[in-house]
Amino acid sequence: MDTGVDGLGDVSAPGRVAALGEGISLEELALAARNHGLPLEALRYDLTPVGLHYVLVHYDIPAADPDAWRLTVRGRVGTELTLDLRALRSYPAIVHRVTMECAGNGRARLTPRPVSQPWLVEAVGTAEWTGVPLRWLLAEAGVAGDAVETVFTGADHGLERGVEQDYQRSLPLAVAMGQDPEVLVAYEMNGRPLPPQHGFPLRLVVPGWYGMAHVKWLRDIEVVDAPFAGFQQHVAYRVRQSADEPGEPVTRIAPRALMIPPGFPEFMSRARVVRPGRVRLEGRAWSGHAPVTDVEVSTGDDWRPAELAATDGHEWAWRRWEAYWDAEPGHHVLGARARDADGNEQPLEQPWNRGGFANNLVQRVSVWCLPETRSSPAGAGGRGRG
Amino acid sequence: MDTGVDGLGDVSAPGRVAALGEGISLEELALAARNHGLPLEALRYDLTPVGLHYVLVHYDIPAADPDAWRLTVRGRVGTELTLDLRALRSYPAIVHRVTMECAGNGRARLTPRPVSQPWLVEAVGTAEWTGVPLRWLLAEAGVAGDAVETVFTGADHGLERGVEQDYQRSLPLAVAMGQDPEVLVAYEMNGRPLPPQHGFPLRLVVPGWYGMAHVKWLRDIEVVDAPFAGFQQHVAYRVRQSADEPGEPVTRIAPRALMIPPGFPEFMSRARVVRPGRVRLEGRAWSGHAPVTDVEVSTGDDWRPAELAATDGHEWAWRRWEAYWDAEPGHHVLGARARDADGNEQPLEQPWNRGGFANNLVQRVSVWCLPETRSSPAGAGGRGRG
Repeated sequence: MDTGVDGLGDVSAPGRVAALGEGISLEELALAARNHGLPLEALRYDLTPVGLHYVLVHYDIPAADPDAWRLTVRGRVGTELTLDLRALRSYPAIVHRVTMECAGNGRARLTPRPVSQPWLVEAVGTAEWTGVPLRWLLAEAGVAGDAVETVFTGADHGLERGVEQDYQRSLPLAVAMGQDPEVLVAYEMNGRPLPPQHGFPLRLVVPGWYGMAHVKWLRDIEVVDAPFAGFQQHVAYRVRQSADEPGEPVTRIAPRALMIPPGFPEFMSRARVVRPGRVRLEGRAWSGHAPVTDVEVSTGDDWRPAELAATDGHEWAWRRWEAYWDAEPGHHVLGARARDADGNEQPLEQPWNRGGFANNLVQRVSVWCLPETRSSPAGAGGRGRG
Repeated sequence: MDTGVDGLGDVSAPGRVAALGEGISLEELALAARNHGLPLEALRYDLTPVGLHYVLVHYDIPAADPDAWRLTVRGRVGTELTLDLRALRSYPAIVHRVTMECAGNGRARLTPRPVSQPWLVEAVGTAEWTGVPLRWLLAEAGVAGDAVETVFTGADHGLERGVEQDYQRSLPLAVAMGQDPEVLVAYEMNGRPLPPQHGFPLRLVVPGWYGMAHVKWLRDIEVVDAPFAGFQQHVAYRVRQSADEPGEPVTRIAPRALMIPPGFPEFMSRARVVRPGRVRLEGRAWSGHAPVTDVEVSTGDDWRPAELAATDGHEWAWRRWEAYWDAEPGHHVLGARARDADGNEQPLEQPWNRGGFANNLVQRVSVWCLPETRSSPAGAGGRGRG
């Protein structure tokens, strides 16, 4: 082993883009086996049950002792705070319903493919998060006049592209102090203590922002007087076309619609099977910029409007939509496309960048409509012995 | 589209084995993005929290209405039963702690690789399942003298290798009526209603058997007088060297030990980083044949005994083990190996078959021990812009 300098160079490689035609590697698969997406039929639930919400863990899930856990609020403040869970639960409990999506969602379908967590399209979920508004804690600590950002540190520790680190991200002070969206220091998900993989005992929730901002296993909040230059802020999570440009930061969620794949699946390909006739298409759509105003569906070449469910007051959560399709025998490719009140719309061509971030290319669903007859009874024997 | 015969041939391909050097396909990745394993650090929990327990769903998670759900017990019985959830909860609640593992665990590391759900090594979990012993229900229904098997049908529906089916599996009557292990019709996992992905509202739990036997979304139990010949019994889940042999059925779990990877991870490779000195190695071991009696660890060429935790009365659940390692700078490959009271032992060479079933090749963990010095502060910038 080369132990020159610090020895990390042998262990941790720079980011890269896969060669054209290069299959998914065992390393990418190892990430996919740990982290997981929302099975798309789970778009049926208004609130995603635990275990179906997408999860991305950069390093390991920390072993957390809730009794010993302390959250510090420090830096450019008048009074440092050290809060245990009991102290945080003594504030009035505020609940926000939030749709969260990984910034790398859709990465594995990009050409060429950025090599990282290989999401296809399913890195999303919606939960109700209970906690204390961050702005209350910052107000209590008293933010100094020269403060510009707040830096959040999690307890998860690892090595990434040569940098040993605790996971850290920052938010501009205006976002951290904002009232809508209101950032939470959350201790419950769907009315129960956070599951380990979602940040037990504490995490940040930043409505409208991609998942990298919602720092899990939150242990420290530092108010700083200069922009934070840490790895996850300035090296990772930047939109770049080439490796040597500074790039633009990844922030709010671009609009996306997802469809519950209709009919039933073929095991290996996940292609869908329906029979002729009227098929209900249903899904969810969301945007972190502004409310979703339109969803269109395609069952061939054209796009036509889907019906949006009434707004339900949960401005930072997904919105249900539905449409109907008269399926005829043959192979079909379906799609759904969202637009928000700011005029942001999902592209029909891939929005490529080296990190595979904020890629909201429209979902495509491959559907086979069979002839009328039912083909084989349940449980019958078949061809293709394995 | 070829709609000849039944049209399914275009949609659903026979099982296959990947070509040598063939990368993981997008189809395999789509399965890995839905189904997920246990993040190995979660081996720390005696009971696996929901969302960390491995999940394999063959088709879609069904939308279940618990009020309308009925379980039927019929076939070669004296009295057919139709039970709703209230009726099932009226029996004394029996709880079993059970380690469950997917029969395909380890498949993606086989050479050549069987193409299916691409597990690396993490398809395992341990839960406490609450329900009604199956033998009570069968006794109440009164099993006929000519009965040989019970067939279990789930509500999940799909197409697999040309066969449209509800998921169905059978058990020999002696197993179904057995007292140890005792098969449960379970309605709770870790003291709460089953999560959707684990079979809500009802599933079978068959202690000691691979996951395919634990039929989820259970809606029907049929007592039959001839061996069941359905797809999941006779086509899938058979140990075969060639496609045209009948093969042996997959049944009980072969012994396996897994180690919590020590130190901290490199994000992309999941390789581990430790610093010199004494490192505690810890993990779990289990077997569906007989209690685990020995675990050995390797930190190089030799194997030496790990210390097993005291037995805790949970005969069908994993057992904790630990060992210590004096780490020195350099690259190391660790391993752990279990043996059970029946003399079954994990192999050091892959036990290959076309389905990639019951493969309990020893786990290998790649660890880099760095020199003494800490290399870079948390959150520092680094090389390798993405």
